[in-house]
Amino acid sequence: MCGIIGYVGYRNAVPVLLYGLQRLEYRGYDSAGIAVLDRLNNKFIIEKKVGKIKDLQEHLWGKNIEGHIGIGHTRWATHGEPTVENAHPHISQSDIITLVHNGIIENYAYLKEELIKKGYQFKSQTDTEVIAHLIEDEYKNNPDKSLLQIALNVVKKLKGAYALGIISTIEPDKIIAVRKGSPLIIGVGENENFIASDIPAVLEYTKKFITLDDDEIAVITKDNIQIYNIHGEKVEKKPFKVNWDISVAEKAGYKHFMLKEIYEQPRTITDTITGFLSQENKELYEKIKDIQIIHIVACGTSYHAGLVGKFWIEKFAKIPVIVDYASEYRYRDLVIDDKTLVIAISQSGETADTRFAVLEAKKKGAKLLSIVNVVGSSLSRESDYVLYTYCGPEIGVAATKTFTAQLITLLLFSLKSALSKNLISEKYFEDFYHDLIKLPSIIERELKDIDKKTEDIAFKYHNAKDFLFLGRGLNYPIALEGALKLKEISYIHAEGYPAGEMKHGPIALIDENMPVVSIIPKDNLYEKMLSNIQEVKARKGKVISLITKGNKEVIEISDDFIEIEETNENLYPILTAIPLQLLAYHIATILGKDVDQPRNLAKTVTVE
Amino acid sequence: MCGIIGYVGYRNAVPVLLYGLQRLEYRGYDSAGIAVLDRLNNKFIIEKKVGKIKDLQEHLWGKNIEGHIGIGHTRWATHGEPTVENAHPHISQSDIITLVHNGIIENYAYLKEELIKKGYQFKSQTDTEVIAHLIEDEYKNNPDKSLLQIALNVVKKLKGAYALGIISTIEPDKIIAVRKGSPLIIGVGENENFIASDIPAVLEYTKKFITLDDDEIAVITKDNIQIYNIHGEKVEKKPFKVNWDISVAEKAGYKHFMLKEIYEQPRTITDTITGFLSQENKELYEKIKDIQIIHIVACGTSYHAGLVGKFWIEKFAKIPVIVDYASEYRYRDLVIDDKTLVIAISQSGETADTRFAVLEAKKKGAKLLSIVNVVGSSLSRESDYVLYTYCGPEIGVAATKTFTAQLITLLLFSLKSALSKNLISEKYFEDFYHDLIKLPSIIERELKDIDKKTEDIAFKYHNAKDFLFLGRGLNYPIALEGALKLKEISYIHAEGYPAGEMKHGPIALIDENMPVVSIIPKDNLYEKMLSNIQEVKARKGKVISLITKGNKEVIEISDDFIEIEETNENLYPILTAIPLQLLAYHIATILGKDVDQPRNLAKTVTVE
Repeated sequence: MCGIIGYVGYRNAVPVLLYGLQRLEYRGYDSAGIAVLDRLNNKFIIEKKVGKIKDLQEHLWGKNIEGHIGIGHTRWATHGEPTVENAHPHISQSDIITLVHNGIIENYAYLKEELIKKGYQFKSQTDTEVIAHLIEDEYKNNPDKSLLQIALNVVKKLKGAYALGIISTIEPDKIIAVRKGSPLIIGVGENENFIASDIPAVLEYTKKFITLDDDEIAVITKDNIQIYNIHGEKVEKKPFKVNWDISVAEKAGYKHFMLKEIYEQPRTITDTITGFLSQENKELYEKIKDIQIIHIVACGTSYHAGLVGKFWIEKFAKIPVIVDYASEYRYRDLVIDDKTLVIAISQSGETADTRFAVLEAKKKGAKLLSIVNVVGSSLSRESDYVLYTYCGPEIGVAATKTFTAQLITLLLFSLKSALSKNLISEKYFEDFYHDLIKLPSIIERELKDIDKKTEDIAFKYHNAKDFLFLGRGLNYPIALEGALKLKEISYIHAEGYPAGEMKHGPIALIDENMPVVSIIPKDNLYEKMLSNIQEVKARKGKVISLITKGNKEVIEISDDFIEIEETNENLYPILTAIPLQLLAYHIATILGKDVDQPRNLAKTVTVE
Repeated sequence: MCGIIGYVGYRNAVPVLLYGLQRLEYRGYDSAGIAVLDRLNNKFIIEKKVGKIKDLQEHLWGKNIEGHIGIGHTRWATHGEPTVENAHPHISQSDIITLVHNGIIENYAYLKEELIKKGYQFKSQTDTEVIAHLIEDEYKNNPDKSLLQIALNVVKKLKGAYALGIISTIEPDKIIAVRKGSPLIIGVGENENFIASDIPAVLEYTKKFITLDDDEIAVITKDNIQIYNIHGEKVEKKPFKVNWDISVAEKAGYKHFMLKEIYEQPRTITDTITGFLSQENKELYEKIKDIQIIHIVACGTSYHAGLVGKFWIEKFAKIPVIVDYASEYRYRDLVIDDKTLVIAISQSGETADTRFAVLEAKKKGAKLLSIVNVVGSSLSRESDYVLYTYCGPEIGVAATKTFTAQLITLLLFSLKSALSKNLISEKYFEDFYHDLIKLPSIIERELKDIDKKTEDIAFKYHNAKDFLFLGRGLNYPIALEGALKLKEISYIHAEGYPAGEMKHGPIALIDENMPVVSIIPKDNLYEKMLSNIQEVKARKGKVISLITKGNKEVIEISDDFIEIEETNENLYPILTAIPLQLLAYHIATILGKDVDQPRNLAKTVTVE
C-alpha cells in the first residue's frame, strides 16, 4: 500500500524523507517520489521515479537539493499504471499546492470533470491529482481563508478513504495532515516534526507519537502541532512513547525476512500460547455464553485462519460460524443482533476492508472481538475485546508466523469458550494444552529437514505453470493458504480446493503437467483423502503428499512427499501450514522473485 | 461417473448393452467394456477398450459374439489410470464371477491384502476387482449356498458406496444387482429384464421401471425380479411408468447439447417461474417462520447457486445462511437443531456427496429442503420439502440451464419466505415478479448478439493460459461460476475471486498476459467494482467487462466488453451468468475440446 512521509524542521528534509521511505518499503510499492520547498524561490522541487527507493536515491545523488519542509511517497498503483506521471507528490495547476495521498477517492471522476470544465489540466491518471487542483481552486475562490480552512472545505467534497500530507507556498511553514480511513501518525520531535504512515519510518528521529484518528486534520510546523476535527474545532491529544527500536526489523542473518519469520515460528507459537493464557478476558468468556452466531471477517491469509477457526469453534464451542471476505461482508444485508459476535482477524489491525466491514456490524449491535498482531492498532482500539498474536513485527509481505499465531489464538479461543459453556472439562483443556505446547519443539526439530526437502521439491517443480493444493476438513483452508503463498511470491497460478469437491469441476485441469500438493495427515478424513489422491493419479497428475511420518501407503502412490510428525489430529493445520510456506519460498527464490516484496502486493492494505 | 447396464432375455445381449452404454455416455467416462455369457461353453466373453463407445463398437464389429445375459460398463477412473486392465467388467480368479461397479470401495486396500494372502492374483489397480475375488472366495467356502446368499455375505464386508451388476457361471441365468449409495434402476420388460444406472439407457426397450433403494439387492432372470433387503428378507416393490421418450435428449440442430441448453434458457426460466408459483408448499412457508439458520449444501455449479441464494435469503428473509461444499459439510461437527433448515441443491438429485451430507444433518434433527431437477430422484424422495427446477433433462456435463433455474428458485424461495414472515408486502412481491417475468424475453432478444460478441472475444483470448473472473456481491458467485465453466470445458486454469479480495494476494498474478473478466453491472457496488478494475488496468491486465448497456465509463477502460440490459439490481446474476456460459463454450470449441463430455468429468457424480 502507499506510504506517506513528511518532515518540517531544522534538518535538510531530503535524506529524512528518503530514510523514511526506505522504512516503508515493506508496504509494497511500484514507484516513489519526494517534494521539498525551495524557500529562496518559494518553489517546489519534485523528483519521482518508477522502481525502488534505491533508484530514486541514485537519481537524486549529487543534485544537492535542499529544503526544510517536504513530503515523500511510495505508490502502490490503484488508478493508472506505475509511471513517473502517476507517482506522487502531485502538484496543482499553478504549482502552489503539492501533496501525497494514500487511499482511494471514489468520486474522483465526477470531481475531475468539474475541474476540467473550469480549465484545470491533468498530468496524471490518478485520483490524487484532483485533490491538488481542488485545493488550489478553493484557495483562488477564498484567498483570505487559512490553509486549514481551505483544506477542511476540500475534504468535505471527497468521498472515499485517504490519508493526506499537504504542503503549500501559501503557508510555506506548515504541513497539513488529514486522515480518513488510512493510517497516519505524527512523530513529535524537538524543533522538528514528522508525519508518516507507520511508526518505523521516523523511529530513528523520535520515540514520541500521536495517532491521527478518522476525520481529524493536523496543522504541523517545526515547533507546533495543532489537531482539529472536521468541523474545525480543536482536539487535544497527548503523545505516547514507544519502547522498541528498529533492530527487531532486521533479517538476523537470513536471506529474506520471510525465511527468518518462518524460522521464528517455534518461538512465536510459544509466545502466542503463553501470551494468550496470561490474559483472562473474563468479560469475553462471560458474553460467549449468550452468543448464538459468530461472523468471522478477514482478508487474505487471515481469512484462511478464519476458515480453520470455524471448524474448531463449531466443534468445541458449538456456536455456528459464518466466515466472510471483509470486502464482501461490508456490502451484504447482514442479519445481526446483540447475540452476534463478530471476529475481525488482521495482522496489522489496519486492514481497511476488515475495519470498515466490522465497524458496520458493530453499529448494528454486534459485539466485536479482534485478533491482531499490532498493539494499539486501529482495530484493537475499536473492538470490545482483543486477542493479540504475540509475533513481533512481520516484515515479509507474505504472512507466515502471524498465520500460525492466528490459528493458535482461534484454537485457544474456541477451547476457552467451550470451557466457559461447560462443554469440555478442565482436564480436557489441560490434555489439549499438553499436546499444543509440544508443537514448538516438534517444529524446531523438523524445520531443517522440511526446509531441505521442500527445496528439493521446489527444484523439481519450479517450472510448472500451475499448481493445485488439496486438503479436507481442517486442512482444506491450509490448502487454500498454501496456494495463496505460492501465488503471492512466485506468481504461479496455484489454486486450493477441498479435495472432495475436485470431481465436481476442477479435476478437468489435471494431466501429467499438473503438480497436486495433497495434505494427508493421519486424521479422521485420511481414507477419504486417499480416494481423492487416487483420482488424481488416475489422471496422471503429479502427486506431492504432505504426510504423517512413515506412512508407506501414501508414499507408494506419491511422486514426492514431505513428512510431518504425528500429533493430536486437531492440531495438524499448524504443522501442515509450515512446509507449504517453505515450498512457496523455495520456488519463488529459485525463480529469482523478490520474496519479501512481491509485485503488486502490499503488506498492510489500507485501501478498500 | 461410471455407468452400468445389464441384460437378461431373449435377444442377443451385445447390441442391447452397446446401445445402453451409448445412452449413458453423458455421464462422462474414459473406457468401456462388456461381458456376455457363452452358454455353450459356460464361459464369459469379455471385451474392453480405452476411449469412446464407438471405439468399443468398432472393436467388436464382425466378431459375432452372442449371449443372452450380459453386463456393460463405462468407467470414470477413481483407482488406477484408464487402461484396458482397469476397465470393467472385472472377473474373478477362476473366471466364475464377472461384475461391473459404480462407486468406491473404501476398505479395498485391506480386503485386497487379505485376498493376496489367500493366493488371489490381481490384474488391475481397481478397487472393483476385490469384489469379484471376494465372491469367488465366499462361494468356494460355501458351495451349497445360493448366489443371493453369497452376494449378501460379501456385501456386508464392503465399506463405501456402490452399485453392482453381477453375473456368474454358478447360476448362469441370473443378474444380481446391488445398490448402496450409487443409483441403479431395473427396467421391467416382457420375457427380458434390464438393469442400468439411469432410465434413458433402456428407454427404447421398456417404459416400466423399479428404483432400487440403498441396501437392496435384486435377483433378476428373464421373467422374474425378486428384491431383498440386506438381511435377505423379501421386499415388495411396484414398477412405475415413465411417459417421456428419448427425443428430449436430442440436440435439435445445435452443434452441442451445451449450446442447445444455453439457448433453452428463456423457456426454462419461464417454466421454472411458473412451475414454482404453481406449487403452494404451505408447510414449508409455515415452518420457515421458526427457522433460525439455513445451511445450503451443494457441489460445483449448484454450490455457486447457493452462494447467490445466501445473499437473497439474508436480504429478504432475514435468516442467516451458511453455504458449504457437501464433501466438507458431511465431516464437520455440525451445530444443528430443529430450527435449522438444510437446503440441498443438486441437478440430478443423486449427487452422492450432497445426499449423504444432508441425510446426516436430517438425522440430527434439521428439516431438509431440496432443489432438484430430476423428478423422483433420491434426494426428492428423502427430503421434507422439494422445489423443482423445471428444465427437462440436461445432457451437457457443464451445467447451464439448471444453474439459472436454481437461481430463480432460490430467489422466489427467499421472497416467499419473506412474505410468509411479513417482511415484505404482496405488492413488493408482485413488483418483483413483474421484473422477473421480463427476463426471458430480455434474454431471448439479446442471446444472438451476446453469442456473436463472446465468440469474437473467444477468438481473441483463446490462447491465454490463465483467466481471472471478478465480481462483487451478488455477482461474486457468478465470477466463480464463469471460471468453473471455462475450467471444466476448456481446461484453462481460470479462477474466480471477489474483486475486493484481489489486492490481498491474487493481484500478484496480474500482468499483460492475464485476461480478467469483470462483471460490473450498474448496481450498488458499481463504484467499488470500478476501483478494482482500475487496479487491474494499473498492472496492465487485459480487462473484459460485462456491463450494463451503453456504460461508456467502463467501455473506455476495457479492452473488450459484453453488454447486458438494465434490470432490477437483484436480478443481475441471472443475466450475467449467460454470457459467461457462452464465453466458455466458444473458447472450448475454438480449442477443439469435447464440450459435452469434457475429460475427467461426469454429469452425475455418484461417488463421494
